[in-house]
Amino acid sequence: VGGTARTPLEQAVRGEVRRDRPTLEGVSGDASHLTGRPSAVVRPVDDDDIVALVRWARTESVPLVPRGAGTSLDGESVPADGAVVVDLTGWNRVLELATDERWARVGPGIGNFALQEAVRPHGLFFPPNPGSWHRSTVGGNVATNASGPRSFRYGAARSWVRALAVVFGNGARARLGTRSAKRSLGPDLLSLVVGSEGTLAIVTEVTVRLAPLPAVRRGLVVPVGATVGTGAIAARLAGAALEGLSAVEYVDRATSRALADEGAPLGPADSAWLLLEVEGPTAAEAERRAARVVAELAASGVTAPPQPFDDADEMWTRRGESGSALDRRLGPRVREDVAVPVGRTDELLAELERAAAEERVPLYVYGHLGEGSVHPNFAVDPASPVAARLRERTVRAALALGGTISGEHGIGRLKRPFVEEELGPAAVGLLDAVKRWCDPDGILNPGKLYPTPRGGGRSAPSPSGAATP
Amino acid sequence: VGGTARTPLEQAVRGEVRRDRPTLEGVSGDASHLTGRPSAVVRPVDDDDIVALVRWARTESVPLVPRGAGTSLDGESVPADGAVVVDLTGWNRVLELATDERWARVGPGIGNFALQEAVRPHGLFFPPNPGSWHRSTVGGNVATNASGPRSFRYGAARSWVRALAVVFGNGARARLGTRSAKRSLGPDLLSLVVGSEGTLAIVTEVTVRLAPLPAVRRGLVVPVGATVGTGAIAARLAGAALEGLSAVEYVDRATSRALADEGAPLGPADSAWLLLEVEGPTAAEAERRAARVVAELAASGVTAPPQPFDDADEMWTRRGESGSALDRRLGPRVREDVAVPVGRTDELLAELERAAAEERVPLYVYGHLGEGSVHPNFAVDPASPVAARLRERTVRAALALGGTISGEHGIGRLKRPFVEEELGPAAVGLLDAVKRWCDPDGILNPGKLYPTPRGGGRSAPSPSGAATP
Repeated sequence: VGGTARTPLEQAVRGEVRRDRPTLEGVSGDASHLTGRPSAVVRPVDDDDIVALVRWARTESVPLVPRGAGTSLDGESVPADGAVVVDLTGWNRVLELATDERWARVGPGIGNFALQEAVRPHGLFFPPNPGSWHRSTVGGNVATNASGPRSFRYGAARSWVRALAVVFGNGARARLGTRSAKRSLGPDLLSLVVGSEGTLAIVTEVTVRLAPLPAVRRGLVVPVGATVGTGAIAARLAGAALEGLSAVEYVDRATSRALADEGAPLGPADSAWLLLEVEGPTAAEAERRAARVVAELAASGVTAPPQPFDDADEMWTRRGESGSALDRRLGPRVREDVAVPVGRTDELLAELERAAAEERVPLYVYGHLGEGSVHPNFAVDPASPVAARLRERTVRAALALGGTISGEHGIGRLKRPFVEEELGPAAVGLLDAVKRWCDPDGILNPGKLYPTPRGGGRSAPSPSGAATP
Repeated sequence: VGGTARTPLEQAVRGEVRRDRPTLEGVSGDASHLTGRPSAVVRPVDDDDIVALVRWARTESVPLVPRGAGTSLDGESVPADGAVVVDLTGWNRVLELATDERWARVGPGIGNFALQEAVRPHGLFFPPNPGSWHRSTVGGNVATNASGPRSFRYGAARSWVRALAVVFGNGARARLGTRSAKRSLGPDLLSLVVGSEGTLAIVTEVTVRLAPLPAVRRGLVVPVGATVGTGAIAARLAGAALEGLSAVEYVDRATSRALADEGAPLGPADSAWLLLEVEGPTAAEAERRAARVVAELAASGVTAPPQPFDDADEMWTRRGESGSALDRRLGPRVREDVAVPVGRTDELLAELERAAAEERVPLYVYGHLGEGSVHPNFAVDPASPVAARLRERTVRAALALGGTISGEHGIGRLKRPFVEEELGPAAVGLLDAVKRWCDPDGILNPGKLYPTPRGGGRSAPSPSGAATP
């Protein structure tokens, strides 16, 4: 596609353009096994530069792929062949911080971790903490509606975006959302762009809401038994609506061993674990709340004493390393992500175990069981037919239980075949209409998210789908 | 428009059709001064009937106006001339209640109050509590993204809708949203329909999220002085992020007198009041939290002792009667609704007082000051040129302060001229594209919300705008 360009990209934009092999290789993939062959990387200098870039891409029919840290798991940031990657990692500043009103206006390329560091001294934090929080960007968190353990209490990224500045794929600029704490002004356009995986607009600024940092955050790791059965324990904790309980996570024994082998154990024993976080305004109150959690666990038959984990962030960092630990232990594999109504989690877990047994593939499970959100890892070549079967069986099981094909990671390339099954034809029609207006030439991140060819854009490059070595 | 119909409505649908004058008059207006002249009222019996109705309306080019309790304040539910009003008040059942997962699937015509009554025995509540909560329907709350005092802590209706069943204006059915507690599946289509004021789809089912009912809810009414200056007190309370503080409301002295004259005083003295709600898991903890609120007030110079209001719901009922009390005292008037960043509320209040003084019109103010959300009432004929000037000055003041033309009530007919000023042309273009797909013939509630003629629908009837006697 890039070969047909008549105006060189270098003349169209003021920002740096790179075409050297190491730079292109550095942006050819994400945390999935997929790769693409981009033609260039551009680092735009300002909003005007992005408008110029979009105009150029429309004229020359070249796909654009906005990119943060490239930590997406389903190919969301894997470039179509010939695409120009729009590197926004340099747009990483806090532009404005309103501590009293608890919001920050930031560049989309700021790291989640860097944002936390910037606002912590003011007693604030940005609640979404995906497993990638040490690496991923806020723009990427917005693009995939990321969440993480604390979404049990705080919800996903969409709840924490107050406003966006964007350049749509048609070249028009807009400011979506408001600085006001409340608004009733028709359909919510902001929430269309959140989760749209760079397919509708390039986000140039994000205004995030911030939450008051709890005075005390106490981690608890609780040894539990078999995976199937833990769903009911988590559902009971969720149903009890315990004050201050902000996360109910699970890591199975196999994954815990991988973490322990790397010197980052979750607990003192060889066990599967529930990881809980309890917040409180004082240490004494956090203690009382933790005692209520322990009592609720006991009512579920979990009587082993919980191990305190004093630094809750360190607990989440270790939990977040589960994926990387399995990367090093297993290499490329199927990393799934589905969610079901919390009361049906055990049924899902049982079906995952059956699927793994029948395919004779080792299974590693972790996830946000307090929200019915499960990440099965199947240790098998992700480009193999077995992998395709296991992926399909996982999402079909979630759908059959009233759940969703993606709890947290998004759709990207890998989940695209299942979108219409969940949404139905009318919702897909509406999705396509939105895409058509925002990106009439289909230049923005084609081949992702939309189940229809139209959603893939005019140029509609086929995913290369090659596994990285 | 109805006169051109060739297939009688009575043959197209199975539900009851009424054309008698009392029925038509009963649905000709809302809580604004506007009225329209509907041609019929239909009470559909099921989803199939609604699909048939939509098909009929498209063929015959007749506008449809979905209707709940008709408590909208800006003409949202005022029918276009010749429209068929779709009366959904009979769709008022709780269809499914999941107490452990804290959600309920309900008919859109169920009353907000009836829903609260149904779920309270299970220790749950539906947080949006607009002033109309004794009368308005959940479907209407969804259509206008309603909120109310507790949105200070809980947010507006959009945050509490998990799923919707809809029939779009193109006749297609969809289920939007998910039963899963979390999902990352592209743009949020559910949040397009919430707040769309019946212009995109007819909602046939609402799945609402429910919150655990706090064990203790304590109302506090605090006497305060002049209106300008109270914004800073409320902003300070909001900024302090006090645990358990769930509402920060204001009612000025003039409005409080109107309530006292009706035998429903907010407090024992002739004063303006801040109305606060504090929640706690126990009476002792609620007491500690209330003491922290009082200390924060003292730091703002508010040292008069707060009056406890033991039944917080009764406090909100009285506060909710402010509008009706002014109805009886003043008759039709300008009822405005804007919101600004909470730190700028006093600037807005000062401008409202200047505007009222310059136009020599009495001003009554109440609102959710903890969120910068203000309801000025100007005692003047709402159809007069003075009213138009005051409306315009109010919304322009809010926009100039970085706020919004509608904090809570929505757009309807009255705010339509100001939508593009707030959203900008690109967002309006996207809004129109959504409308075009959902309702290609413009049959759903034409003349509302959209600033462009296209958004008003093909038939685009002009608002009658006649004041009720």
